[in-house]
Amino acid sequence: MPDIMDSISQKSINCLDKGHVTLVDVMPRVVPEGKTADYAIVQAARVSYGDGTKTVNEDRGLIRYLLRHSHTTPLEMIEFKFHVKMPIFVCRQWARHRMSSTNEISARYSILKDDFYFPASGDLRKQSSINKQGGDGSIDESSASSSYCIKKIVDDANNNYNFYEYMIKSGVAREQARMVLPLNIYTEFYWKIDLHNLFHFLALRADSHAQKEIRVYADAILVLLRQIVPIAVEAWEDYHHMRGAIKLTRLEVESLRDYIQQFQSFANAEFKQVNSENKREQAEWLDKASILGINLPLPTQQGPEGQSS
Amino acid sequence: MPDIMDSISQKSINCLDKGHVTLVDVMPRVVPEGKTADYAIVQAARVSYGDGTKTVNEDRGLIRYLLRHSHTTPLEMIEFKFHVKMPIFVCRQWARHRMSSTNEISARYSILKDDFYFPASGDLRKQSSINKQGGDGSIDESSASSSYCIKKIVDDANNNYNFYEYMIKSGVAREQARMVLPLNIYTEFYWKIDLHNLFHFLALRADSHAQKEIRVYADAILVLLRQIVPIAVEAWEDYHHMRGAIKLTRLEVESLRDYIQQFQSFANAEFKQVNSENKREQAEWLDKASILGINLPLPTQQGPEGQSS
Amino acid sequence: MPDIMDSISQKSINCLDKGHVTLVDVMPRVVPEGKTADYAIVQAARVSYGDGTKTVNEDRGLIRYLLRHSHTTPLEMIEFKFHVKMPIFVCRQWARHRMSSTNEISARYSILKDDFYFPASGDLRKQSSINKQGGDGSIDESSASSSYCIKKIVDDANNNYNFYEYMIKSGVAREQARMVLPLNIYTEFYWKIDLHNLFHFLALRADSHAQKEIRVYADAILVLLRQIVPIAVEAWEDYHHMRGAIKLTRLEVESLRDYIQQFQSFANAEFKQVNSENKREQAEWLDKASILGINLPLPTQQGPEGQSS
Amino acid sequence: MPDIMDSISQKSINCLDKGHVTLVDVMPRVVPEGKTADYAIVQAARVSYGDGTKTVNEDRGLIRYLLRHSHTTPLEMIEFKFHVKMPIFVCRQWARHRMSSTNEISARYSILKDDFYFPASGDLRKQSSINKQGGDGSIDESSASSSYCIKKIVDDANNNYNFYEYMIKSGVAREQARMVLPLNIYTEFYWKIDLHNLFHFLALRADSHAQKEIRVYADAILVLLRQIVPIAVEAWEDYHHMRGAIKLTRLEVESLRDYIQQFQSFANAEFKQVNSENKREQAEWLDKASILGINLPLPTQQGPEGQSS
Repeated sequence: MPDIMDSISQKSINCLDKGHVTLVDVMPRVVPEGKTADYAIVQAARVSYGDGTKTVNEDRGLIRYLLRHSHTTPLEMIEFKFHVKMPIFVCRQWARHRMSSTNEISARYSILKDDFYFPASGDLRKQSSINKQGGDGSIDESSASSSYCIKKIVDDANNNYNFYEYMIKSGVAREQARMVLPLNIYTEFYWKIDLHNLFHFLALRADSHAQKEIRVYADAILVLLRQIVPIAVEAWEDYHHMRGAIKLTRLEVESLRDYIQQFQSFANAEFKQVNSENKREQAEWLDKASILGINLPLPTQQGPEGQSS
Repeated sequence: MPDIMDSISQKSINCLDKGHVTLVDVMPRVVPEGKTADYAIVQAARVSYGDGTKTVNEDRGLIRYLLRHSHTTPLEMIEFKFHVKMPIFVCRQWARHRMSSTNEISARYSILKDDFYFPASGDLRKQSSINKQGGDGSIDESSASSSYCIKKIVDDANNNYNFYEYMIKSGVAREQARMVLPLNIYTEFYWKIDLHNLFHFLALRADSHAQKEIRVYADAILVLLRQIVPIAVEAWEDYHHMRGAIKLTRLEVESLRDYIQQFQSFANAEFKQVNSENKREQAEWLDKASILGINLPLPTQQGPEGQSS
Repeated sequence: MPDIMDSISQKSINCLDKGHVTLVDVMPRVVPEGKTADYAIVQAARVSYGDGTKTVNEDRGLIRYLLRHSHTTPLEMIEFKFHVKMPIFVCRQWARHRMSSTNEISARYSILKDDFYFPASGDLRKQSSINKQGGDGSIDESSASSSYCIKKIVDDANNNYNFYEYMIKSGVAREQARMVLPLNIYTEFYWKIDLHNLFHFLALRADSHAQKEIRVYADAILVLLRQIVPIAVEAWEDYHHMRGAIKLTRLEVESLRDYIQQFQSFANAEFKQVNSENKREQAEWLDKASILGINLPLPTQQGPEGQSS
Repeated sequence: MPDIMDSISQKSINCLDKGHVTLVDVMPRVVPEGKTADYAIVQAARVSYGDGTKTVNEDRGLIRYLLRHSHTTPLEMIEFKFHVKMPIFVCRQWARHRMSSTNEISARYSILKDDFYFPASGDLRKQSSINKQGGDGSIDESSASSSYCIKKIVDDANNNYNFYEYMIKSGVAREQARMVLPLNIYTEFYWKIDLHNLFHFLALRADSHAQKEIRVYADAILVLLRQIVPIAVEAWEDYHHMRGAIKLTRLEVESLRDYIQQFQSFANAEFKQVNSENKREQAEWLDKASILGINLPLPTQQGPEGQSS
C-alpha cells in the first residue's frame, strides 16, 4: 500500500523570517489504494457497523455528518507529528494547547542559537483602538519611528545575545544565562497532536482574531493538512462557526425571525436548498429554516420514486 | 463570607427509580457578599487587568463575552463534585467524558447491592425508524408485550442477582461473580469536573438526541448548576448552538442570503437589534446580519453623546 | 524505508474464549533501515542537541536513561492503534485509562452479537481471604457448585440474550433493550494510546494484582509491543517498580541500612557493580548503595586512561 | 463547619526577588471538625465501602496505603488554586504541566509591568561540568565577571523595557512590542491543579535536579500544602522515590541480593521491622526483604491473640 508521505508535494513551509513548520509523520501513514488518510476516521466510526470503510463518496458523507454533529472522537484516530521552529513569544501561545505532546529544545542543556525574529519594514502593526488585544493595519513604513524600531530590535537582540554568550564563556550556568534573551529568539520542538485537537487549535489560531505571527504557522499547518485529510478539512471549513459557518445566538435568532416574518406575507420568493447532494444535510437546513420562521411548503420527503434517504 | 452550600435550596435530585445526583462540594465554596460563584470566572479572566471582579453587572457582561467567544479557560476555575447513583448502561456513556475525575464503587472489593433500574409501564420506547440510535415515543402500555417486558426485566434481574449471591456464597471471587449481573444494576461514584468540561458534557447529554436515561441526570445537574453559577448558565443557554443558539453552515448561510436578497428591493421592513443592552453584542449582530445580506443603514457607532462602548 | 507492520510476525492475539487484541497501526510506521520504532523516542529527545538519532547502541543508552529518570515526554511520540474485543466487565476497567482515544461499538445504534465470555471449568477463582479485591486459586473443578456455576453462566446469558432479541423484535428501542444483557457480553472498540500512557496502563494491568481477565489482554499487548519498541520495553521492565525493580520506602531504607551496617565491620564481602556496561547507570547504583550504608572504597571515577563517561 | 482558609497561618510565600505563590482557594474548603482536607481523599476512596471517613487514624492508614500503591484517583478529589508571579523563563517550564488550568496575564491585552528578576550577587551558578543541564555551586561573587554580569542584567532589562515603552507610545501593537522583552520579566497567573497532578509536579520541581529558580516555587507550594493535607504530604514524602524512598532497578536488586547473601551464613544480625505501626506496611517490607535475599524466620502472621490485621 502506498506511503502517504511519498504522495504529498509539500512537507515543509517557511514561516516568518527564519521559522518553519514541517510534517514529520502521520498516522495512518499507509492507506488503501484510492483513499486518503480520511479513511481512518471512517474505519473507527464504523466499528459500530462492523463493515469498515465503503466507497469514497459514502465515506465523505459520513465524515461530513460527524463534523456537522460534533461527533469528534473518530477524528482522534488521526495523528500528526510536526517539527516547528518559531519565536518564543509565539511558542508561549502555542503551549496553551494542552492536548498534544511536545519535545522542545532545552536551554538548560543546549546553547540557543543566534536566531531571532526580526520584523521587516512594514511588518509592525498599529495597536488597534477598538480591539484591546489586536493589531490594526501597518505602521507607516516611512516614519522615523518605524525604521528606528526595526533597527533597534536587531541591535538589542545582538546586544542581548552577545551578553548571553559572554556569560556562558564566563562559566555561568546555561539555565541562568538564558534569562537575558528576548522573547523574539527562536526555539524549536517536535509537536504531536490528533486531528480533533488540531482542528480546535486551528479554529483559534487560523482565525482573524489570532496574532498574525502565530496565524502564519496555523495557516501553514492547514496547507499541509489539506494534502493528508482533504475530506475532513473541507467539512470542517463548511461547518465550523469560526470558518465558513456562523453561529446565531438565541437573541439573534429571535431578531432574524422577526425580520423575515415581515416579508413573508407579500412576497413569494424562492427558497433554495443548500448546495449539497446530501439529503440529511438538506433536511437539517429545513429544520433550521423553520426555526427562523421561513414558511415553506412542506417538502415531499417521500417522493413516488423513493429517491430520498 | 457566606458558604454557598448553605444558600442553595436543592442539593440532591432523584433520577430514574432509585438513582440520584447530589452536589457534594464546589469551588469556590465561599464567595463575597452579594456575589455568586460566577465571580471566580471573572477573577481569573481579569488577572490580565489586575483589577479582579467589579460590579455584578460588569461581571455579567464579561462572562457573556467569554461564553460568546469560546474563551473557556476561566470556566475551568470552577469545580463541582457530585455523588451519583445510576445504572451501569448509563454509566458507560458517562465514562466517555474523560476530562473529569471519578471514584466508583469497586465490584472487585464490594458486593453490589440488589438495586436495579426497572422501567415503569410507559417508560419503554419504540425504536425510531428514522434515527437508528434513538427511541421514538412510548410503547403502547396496554400491549401484551409491554407488560411482559416490564415484568420479565424484574424477574431476570432477580434471577441474575440470586445467582450472583449464590456464587459469592460458594466462594467465587467477587470480581468474577459480577459478570452475570445485567447492565441495569445500579452503581455509584464521586465525580469531579470543572465548569468548562461540564458545559461540554451538558451540551451532549442534556440534549434531545441523548438517551433519555442519561438526560434525566444531565437535566438534574443543570438544575443544581443554576443555583451556583446562574450567570454562566444563562449565557451558555443563550449562546451554545446545542441550546438556544443555532449554527448555520457555510452552505446554509449562502441559501439564507439568497433568500433574504429577494425581499430587500421592494420592502422596507424594520430590523430590530438583539434584545440586549450590551453594545458589543449588538455590534456583533450587525456584523452577522451583513454577512446574511441584510442591507442596513450604517449604524452611527459613535454618537455625539459618546454613549457607545 | 521498510513498513514496520510487514516485519512483525504477530499482529493479533486471542484473549479469553472469544476476544482478541489486534495491532492495527503504529506511529512511526516507517523507520530507517536497521532501526526499530524506538528511534522516534530518540529523535524527539535529541531535538535538544540538533543531531537526531545515532548508533543503535547510543540510542539504547539514551532510552534507558530516559526511562530510568522518568523523562517520559519523548515516549509520547510513539502511538499505537489496537482493535480489541472483550467482555464489558473488563472494558469498564479499561475505560478508566483516560489518556487514550476510543471508538466503541454503539449498542444504541447496533444490535449486539450473541457473544459472551463463558469461563471454562477451572477458570473460576476463589475469593481471596487476604486481599479483599482479588481471587486466589481455582475453585475445585470437580465440585458440584463449580459445574453448576459454569453451566448456569451459559444458561442465564442465553436466557438474557433471548429476551434482548425478543424486545428488539417487539420494537423496543435498542438503547433500552440492552439493559438486560449481562456484563460478560463482548464489546469491541478501536483504541489509540501513546507509549508513555501505555506503559502506565501496563504497569497497572499486566500486574499480579490486576484481575486475570484484564491481565490476559495487557500481557498480549506486551507481546505485541516487544516487536515494535524492544529497547523501550526492555528498559521499562528493568526500571519500573511494578516490573523488575522495587521501590523501598523511606522507612524501609532505614531498616535495610541498619541491617547492612551490622555486617560491615567484620566481613569483607565483594560488592558487585550492576550488570550493565553503562557508566552512568553504574554511578547511580553507587549513589544508592551509599544511601543504603554500604561502605565502599571510593570508586576511581576518573582513571588515568580516562575510560569513564 | 470551619473554613480551612481561616485555620492556616501562611497563605502566601515570597519567591525570588519580586515573585510569590499564594494559595487562593482549595476544595474541600469546609471540613468536619477535627479533620483536615485529607478527609476528602478518604471519602472518595471509601465510596466502595459505603461508610465514608472513619477515625483520623484509620483515615491516615488508608491514605498511606493509597500512596504506597499508586492508587491515585482519590487524590484527584482535592483541588488547589494558586496565584503565582514568576519570571517567564521559569513559567515556560511550569507550563509543561498540562493537567492543570491556567489564566495568565495577556501581553496582547495589557502592558507588562517593569518587573524583572535580578539575581543578587551570589545567585549566579557555575555551569556543571558533570550534569549538562544543571548549575553547580555559586560563581565567585568577588570576581570581576560576576559583578559585571549582575549589573548588566539590570542595565539590559532597563534598556529593553525602555524600548518596549517607546514602541507602545509610538503606537506599535502590544502583541508585537513585547518581543523585545527578556525572559527574566515577571508574569502572573492563576493556576488550578488537583493533588495527584500536584504531587507529580512537586516530584519533578521540588527535586535537586530541578532548576533552582523553579524549585523555590515548588518548595513554597510544599509548605502551603503541608497545612492543608498534612497526612497525604507525609505519606508522599515517605513513599515517593523522588523524596525519601528509593527505587532499585532490576539490576540493582540483583547486585544487592548478591551482596547480602555473603553475610547471611556467618552472622546473626537483627532485622528490624519498618518503623510503622501498620501491619500491612510491615508485611510489605517482609516481602521485599525476601526479594533482597534476606533470610528471615517466617513471621508469625496470625498469633493466638489474633492481633494481626
